[in-house]
Amino acid sequence: MRTAYREQMAGLNSVLGSMCELAGGAMERSTQALLQADLAVAEEVITDHEKITSLSVHAEEQAFALLALQAPVASDLRAVVSTFQIVADADRMGALALHVAKVARRRHPAHALPEEVNGYFAEMGRLAVQLAATAREVLNTQDPNDALRLQDDDDAMDDLHRHLFTVLMDREWRHGVAAAVDVTLLGRYYERFADHAVLIGRRVVFQATGKTPEQLVDVGEY
Amino acid sequence: MRTAYREQMAGLNSVLGSMCELAGGAMERSTQALLQADLAVAEEVITDHEKITSLSVHAEEQAFALLALQAPVASDLRAVVSTFQIVADADRMGALALHVAKVARRRHPAHALPEEVNGYFAEMGRLAVQLAATAREVLNTQDPNDALRLQDDDDAMDDLHRHLFTVLMDREWRHGVAAAVDVTLLGRYYERFADHAVLIGRRVVFQATGKTPEQLVDVGEY
Repeated sequence: MRTAYREQMAGLNSVLGSMCELAGGAMERSTQALLQADLAVAEEVITDHEKITSLSVHAEEQAFALLALQAPVASDLRAVVSTFQIVADADRMGALALHVAKVARRRHPAHALPEEVNGYFAEMGRLAVQLAATAREVLNTQDPNDALRLQDDDDAMDDLHRHLFTVLMDREWRHGVAAAVDVTLLGRYYERFADHAVLIGRRVVFQATGKTPEQLVDVGEY
Repeated sequence: MRTAYREQMAGLNSVLGSMCELAGGAMERSTQALLQADLAVAEEVITDHEKITSLSVHAEEQAFALLALQAPVASDLRAVVSTFQIVADADRMGALALHVAKVARRRHPAHALPEEVNGYFAEMGRLAVQLAATAREVLNTQDPNDALRLQDDDDAMDDLHRHLFTVLMDREWRHGVAAAVDVTLLGRYYERFADHAVLIGRRVVFQATGKTPEQLVDVGEY
């Protein structure tokens, strides 16, 4: 029973990892579409979104099957329940990448971004892709140390996001209100994408140790 | 066993309803803080946020206890799992109300909003409070018809949100980029608050009928 549980749980975490991989790939292409005003790439992300949605359904079915067949208890039960929450996070990451692609499409053939902020979005895109890759990796390895490190990349994202706002709020901003609105929403999409990757990391810590990151720190284990 | 399950599930849904009530109350006061630049009310929302967080923990514990003690199967199992998702939605509604309060606090003693858009936010606030109240009600009654009606209020929210953007994008906007950024983010917070209330309605439909709203429409039950 216990072996079957472990195997099914590993299979389920691997599906969740694939969701993160798809979300990261979508954000990579959305960022490219945004920076290069590339309609074809934006359309690709929009079409491919369905793959993430169908993996969500598949992952939830697997999690229900695991609950029904293995009837896990105590910390195993909590670990399975956390997979439903991870599905929701990874699904949301995909939706946020989709939002970015849709802004690129809406503004095409114009660029949604003034050139001045391209560097910020290139870097936020890079961090988002990295966060999704780390989330995928820790879902597979269940390594709580690596999971905790997602927080560092998120701190870098938050710094970028804050700097972006100082650029927007600067009296020198010459790109008008419409561009400012786009930049505000786009910045928020990247920031939220990162937040969900961090949440996945927190849930992996919980799956692997039965403790929240804060509890781990309290007992001095990390 | 079945009676115990039903009683515990009703108790759990009532806790989830209380979370919606707190989130709605927070959004009501956040809107007041925003419209009147009322620092004391904003601080109150920020201090009270902890109540929603602790109800989340309490609700999750109850849901785990229900899984462990009643070992529900089939549609009952799905209903219990959906309560974890409802906790996440209601918790997020509280966080979004908190974001609004923090903007009001950050801009105090100034008003965050130009007077021109006060009417939009008063109405978005009213809709948000109403959505939270309906979410609470359907959690208690488990009435799928009422749950489906949450969608209508969300459509009204989306319309307001769209109009707000036309005001922002208008060449006549005279309030500068900083105010536009605040209005953009605030508008997004109200819109997402409404989205989560709708998601709660969808999950209640699922708890009550074992079907998604789309499946219900397909089979002609609604």
